[in-house]
Amino acid sequence: MKKIGKQTIQFDTPPTILDCASIVGPKEAQGPLAKYFDQTLDDEFWGEKTWEKAESKIIKETVNTLISKSGIAIDEIDCCFAGDLLNQCISSSFGLRELNVPFFGVFGACSTFVESMSLGAICTESFAEHVLCATSSHFCSAEKQFRFPLELGNQRPPTSQWTVTGAGSCILSKSGQGPFITTITPGKIIDMGIKDGNNMGAAMAPAFADTLVTHFLDTGRNPSYYDAIISGDLGYIGKEIVIDILASQGYNIKSNYNDCGVLIFDKAKQDTHAGGSGCGCCGSVFSGYFFKQLQEKKIKKMLLIATGALMNSTSSQQGETIPGIAHAISIEL
Amino acid sequence: MKKIGKQTIQFDTPPTILDCASIVGPKEAQGPLAKYFDQTLDDEFWGEKTWEKAESKIIKETVNTLISKSGIAIDEIDCCFAGDLLNQCISSSFGLRELNVPFFGVFGACSTFVESMSLGAICTESFAEHVLCATSSHFCSAEKQFRFPLELGNQRPPTSQWTVTGAGSCILSKSGQGPFITTITPGKIIDMGIKDGNNMGAAMAPAFADTLVTHFLDTGRNPSYYDAIISGDLGYIGKEIVIDILASQGYNIKSNYNDCGVLIFDKAKQDTHAGGSGCGCCGSVFSGYFFKQLQEKKIKKMLLIATGALMNSTSSQQGETIPGIAHAISIEL
Repeated sequence: MKKIGKQTIQFDTPPTILDCASIVGPKEAQGPLAKYFDQTLDDEFWGEKTWEKAESKIIKETVNTLISKSGIAIDEIDCCFAGDLLNQCISSSFGLRELNVPFFGVFGACSTFVESMSLGAICTESFAEHVLCATSSHFCSAEKQFRFPLELGNQRPPTSQWTVTGAGSCILSKSGQGPFITTITPGKIIDMGIKDGNNMGAAMAPAFADTLVTHFLDTGRNPSYYDAIISGDLGYIGKEIVIDILASQGYNIKSNYNDCGVLIFDKAKQDTHAGGSGCGCCGSVFSGYFFKQLQEKKIKKMLLIATGALMNSTSSQQGETIPGIAHAISIEL
Repeated sequence: MKKIGKQTIQFDTPPTILDCASIVGPKEAQGPLAKYFDQTLDDEFWGEKTWEKAESKIIKETVNTLISKSGIAIDEIDCCFAGDLLNQCISSSFGLRELNVPFFGVFGACSTFVESMSLGAICTESFAEHVLCATSSHFCSAEKQFRFPLELGNQRPPTSQWTVTGAGSCILSKSGQGPFITTITPGKIIDMGIKDGNNMGAAMAPAFADTLVTHFLDTGRNPSYYDAIISGDLGYIGKEIVIDILASQGYNIKSNYNDCGVLIFDKAKQDTHAGGSGCGCCGSVFSGYFFKQLQEKKIKKMLLIATGALMNSTSSQQGETIPGIAHAISIEL
C-alpha cells in the first residue's frame, strides 16, 4: 500500500470484504431495510437483564453468525478490531471476550465501523490473512448513558437522532473475489464549535465534508466516480448540511449521496426525528444492505464515510463543543 | 512484516522510536523517576477549571513537546493513534483536536500506549513515514469516573492502584537509528473471573501471562533474551502474581522483570498502596525513563507489555467480572 495525496492510502492488493453479518433491534425490524438483516429482535433486552448485557449479546451473536456464514474458522482470524459507544467500550470487550483472537479496541464514536475496517484493511494487506471488524450500539443503553433515563419519558428535540439498536461485522481477507477495499481516507478531528448535543448531524457534517473533499483531491476522483457515496450517520439534518457544504466547494453529490441514518428508518411512520445514528447504524446498514447491493452488482463503486462525535456527557456539561471525525473507505468490485 | 507463530508480528524493516515526551502530575514529581520526565506539574489542575480539561491539556502539551523536540513538522506525521481512560476517550479527542493529523482513536484501558505503538508500527512499516502515539490518565478524573468523588475522602483498600496523572507520547519512523520495534504480540481478551474493581493487578495478571508466554513460544525467545521485561501497570500485587504464574509455566522472570506502576512511586514514602496504574503510567514511564535507558544503551533489548482492564463502573455494578488484555512490543537497539 502507499499514501497518495495528503491523507489517503491506496492498496496494491486490495483486501476483499469476504462476508458480513448484522443483527438489529425491534424498531429497526419495522424499518424499510428489515429484510436485509441476518436477524431482527422482538425486544430491546433479548433475554438479558440489562441493556448493556443485551448490547454485548447482540455484538457477540452478530460475530458468531458471521463466522458460521463465512466458513472461516475462528483460529484463521489473525486479529479483531471492535468498539462501541458505551463507556470504556464494554459492549465489545464483554461481547467478544470469549473470541480468543488478538483484540484491538478502537473508539471513533459512530465512525468506529469504518475505522475498524480501515485498520483491518491495513493489517490484511500487510500481515493478516483474515481480520474481523465489529461494532454495536443500543438505543436504550445510549440514551441512559448520554442523555436521560428512558423512564423519564423526556421529549426529544426534532434535531435529535435515534441511536440504532444493532451490530454489524465483517471479515476482511487477503485473497478473494471482492468487493475490494481499494483506498482509505482516515479523517482528522474537526471542531467547528457546535455545542448542541441534540444536533449531532450538524456537529459531524464539517468532518464529513473535510474527509470527502480530501478524498476527491487525493485520488483525483469526483462524485460521479461512485455509484453511491454513503455517510453513516448524519441523519436528515446532517445530510442537508453536507450537500450544501460540498456544493459551496464545487462538488454536486445530490444524485448519488445518501445516509445510513436516513435509510434505516421510515421518516413518515417511525418518528425518529432526524434519523438513525450510533456505531450499529453504519455497521448494520453496510453489513446488511450495502454488502448485498455490492454482491448483486447493483452498486459497483461506493464510498462509505462513517462520522463520529467525539464527546461525552461530562464534556457537554463543562461547556465544551463537539469535535467530529469522519473516516472514508472506497469499496469497488 | 510477517506473522510468526500464533499471534506475533515480526517486522522486516523495524520502525524506529524516533523520540518520546512525557508530562506528569505533582505526586509523580515526588517519585523516584521525576528527573526523567520532560515536565512535572505543581498541581492537578494546571490552570484549568476541571480535571478533564487538565488531562486534555497534559496530553496536548506532551504532544507539542514531542513535536518540537523531534524536529518533525506536524505535516510530516501521517497519522496519530491515541486514547485514554475517560468515557469516550475525551482527553485525547479534545486534547488533540487541533493537531490536524488523521486520527485513529484506540481504547485498551491501561494497555492503550502499547496498543497505539503496535498499530503505529504496522502503519510505519506499511505506508507511513511518521506516526504519532499518545495516551494520558489523571488520578482525579479517573477516581471521579470509576470510583468515588474525591471529596468523600473514601478509604482505599490496600490492593487498589493509584492512577497516574500524566501522559506519554512517541513518534515512530520508517527510517532511523533505533531503538527499533522488532516484534509485536497483540493480546487476546482473558477473563479469569476476578470481580474486585479494587484489585486490577489480579484481574490483568492472567492476560499478561498469556501474552508473555505466547510471545516466548512464537519467537522462540526466553526470559533471558531480554535485558528488561516491563509490564505497565500491574502494580505490586499483579507483579507477584505474574512471577508465580510464569514460574508455574516454567519461565523464571524474577531477575529481569519489573512494572511501570511499581517504578513510578516510592512504596515506603508515597502511600499509593499497590502502585501506579492508568494509560499515563506506562506511557510516561516508557517515554520518560525507559526510552532514555535505551538511548544510553543501558538497556539493549526490552519487552514492554501494557495491560488493561476492559470494564467500566456499570459493568461492575451489574455483577460482571473484569476482562483483561495485554499487548507486547519488543524494542531492540
